[in-house]
Amino acid sequence: MSELRKDPLTNRWVIISEDRAKRPMNYVEEERIEELYCPFDYGNENSTPNELLSFRSPDSKANESGWWVRVVPNKFSALKENIILDKSPYGIYDRVSGFGYHEVIIETPEHNTNVSHFSLKQMEEVFWAYLKRFNSLKEDKRIKYIQIFKNYGKKAGASLVHPHSQLIATSIVPVNLIDEIEGAKKYFNFKNRCVFCDIVKYEEEVNERIIFKSENFIVFEPYASRFPYETWIMPRFHSHDFGELEKNEDIVKELAEVSKNFYSRFFKVLNNPPYNMLIHTAPFGEDCSKEYHWHIEIIPRITNIAGFEWGTGFYINSVSPEKAADELKKEEPFL
Amino acid sequence: MSELRKDPLTNRWVIISEDRAKRPMNYVEEERIEELYCPFDYGNENSTPNELLSFRSPDSKANESGWWVRVVPNKFSALKENIILDKSPYGIYDRVSGFGYHEVIIETPEHNTNVSHFSLKQMEEVFWAYLKRFNSLKEDKRIKYIQIFKNYGKKAGASLVHPHSQLIATSIVPVNLIDEIEGAKKYFNFKNRCVFCDIVKYEEEVNERIIFKSENFIVFEPYASRFPYETWIMPRFHSHDFGELEKNEDIVKELAEVSKNFYSRFFKVLNNPPYNMLIHTAPFGEDCSKEYHWHIEIIPRITNIAGFEWGTGFYINSVSPEKAADELKKEEPFL
Repeated sequence: MSELRKDPLTNRWVIISEDRAKRPMNYVEEERIEELYCPFDYGNENSTPNELLSFRSPDSKANESGWWVRVVPNKFSALKENIILDKSPYGIYDRVSGFGYHEVIIETPEHNTNVSHFSLKQMEEVFWAYLKRFNSLKEDKRIKYIQIFKNYGKKAGASLVHPHSQLIATSIVPVNLIDEIEGAKKYFNFKNRCVFCDIVKYEEEVNERIIFKSENFIVFEPYASRFPYETWIMPRFHSHDFGELEKNEDIVKELAEVSKNFYSRFFKVLNNPPYNMLIHTAPFGEDCSKEYHWHIEIIPRITNIAGFEWGTGFYINSVSPEKAADELKKEEPFL
Repeated sequence: MSELRKDPLTNRWVIISEDRAKRPMNYVEEERIEELYCPFDYGNENSTPNELLSFRSPDSKANESGWWVRVVPNKFSALKENIILDKSPYGIYDRVSGFGYHEVIIETPEHNTNVSHFSLKQMEEVFWAYLKRFNSLKEDKRIKYIQIFKNYGKKAGASLVHPHSQLIATSIVPVNLIDEIEGAKKYFNFKNRCVFCDIVKYEEEVNERIIFKSENFIVFEPYASRFPYETWIMPRFHSHDFGELEKNEDIVKELAEVSKNFYSRFFKVLNNPPYNMLIHTAPFGEDCSKEYHWHIEIIPRITNIAGFEWGTGFYINSVSPEKAADELKKEEPFL
């Protein structure tokens, strides 16, 4: 029996419908990897633009080997930092010049690995790179939002296999954030509480969708999951700003442990799935510190998104979040 | 040089960035088709649920061969019509029972063809099937929205190759429609004009993104196209309700001609692309007859949607709509 569930933040509904998984299928898809020259390997540092940040051994030089995490501008950047931020009309429409930052975080020198095999230390260093770049770009007052994200696997939009994530900093606030914040503000006006804090408390109370929790984080499948095995990592403490984490080394370390714990279950249960990772955090320039609550969304890309979902924003999910949480909970993490 | 463009309806921005197309790529994807027993072929009518509507020769019987368009309930339906529409709380969340209709429109008895090869008559009959089912389901007052859509090709979410489209009728209004209507109402309050009518007039005036037009329709690439070759078919006359078309046979015929003209260009330029087709029309039960304007969106699925787009609803498009319109305009349709 299927059921409709509403996301508590936006007007987004999903259909949880397990019957849909039984459909016959004419299509067989295969994927192979072609090994090209990799611009992210040791020795190839000069095939990327000059590095913006690296964690490297003290006897090594910038833009040479010896690093363990390296951040560079995206060579095929969607936005450029050296142009003027210009807003203008175009007939009845609005346009803005392509000002912004687009960076690549090379997560490890190792070409053939994935985040579930990272050491705890390596995972922690990746979060430090995120935080350093996030807080540095935030200083540019033209920037209104910073999205940190990762595409893993072709289906998730990756073009290169070498482990990396990306950061885009823009002069506009993207629509999904506007919607989330509007939803969070409506909830706050009605209840005088943060909706994300309420989700944490309610999920802990019913304990049907939590995979595990630590002192400061819960890892759970959201009630209105759009996709099979969609997972959120959410701080149990209230904070609207991911960048604030820089002030607390212990919590960064804990987040690395929690991530490693989750990814090692996730890669085993779903057998090396393509996925997107997204850090949702408050935009700058508008106060939503009481209402918004940063969190990480992990979206497996194991099903194709069809026309109905595109047309409506109304998702059909054939695996209930309760079942997904159960499977991920049972798996032993490797830490 | 990239540029940010805002959709005039929602808060959705896109980045038009042609440089992105030049990225190196580690992944090679291949797709093959396995020929299974096809429930939509002549002679297999009893492997679908009983038909709801068919256009067939007068000497043939229901649920036997002799039809040219056939509509049946989806065997793997996401929603069921024979359950009570029940809205209830679940802790802090909202849920609704999985009431609704999910139907399949089998567009032709021919297994191996696609819409670009349909005769004009066949295309027209498909629109008649849409209209008959749309207006029939609209009578059920529990239904608030009807989405007609098509998934063509695996990447667009199709599971079967036999030409078909689908219809989902739901008790809730999906979030994208709510957003579009909110945007259209804001525009109307400000300008006292329909934003879609303004788009038609402005696009005709500048003539940079129109592929072609007929007496009653324009076929164009929207200014803030999210995807390469995204195309909208829009009535040049104001009408919020797709179902109203049933009253005017000539316009249905014209829409079939326009569609065939477009798809034959589209299939040649993009070489049989996977795509989604979506008919956007006003929901029921809330008056938006002045502000909303039905239209058809065609979304090619030739690029993967990556994490950034998912996380933000902020799309990066590597083909400008002006360039896409130019290419589609030059191609000769086969009519």
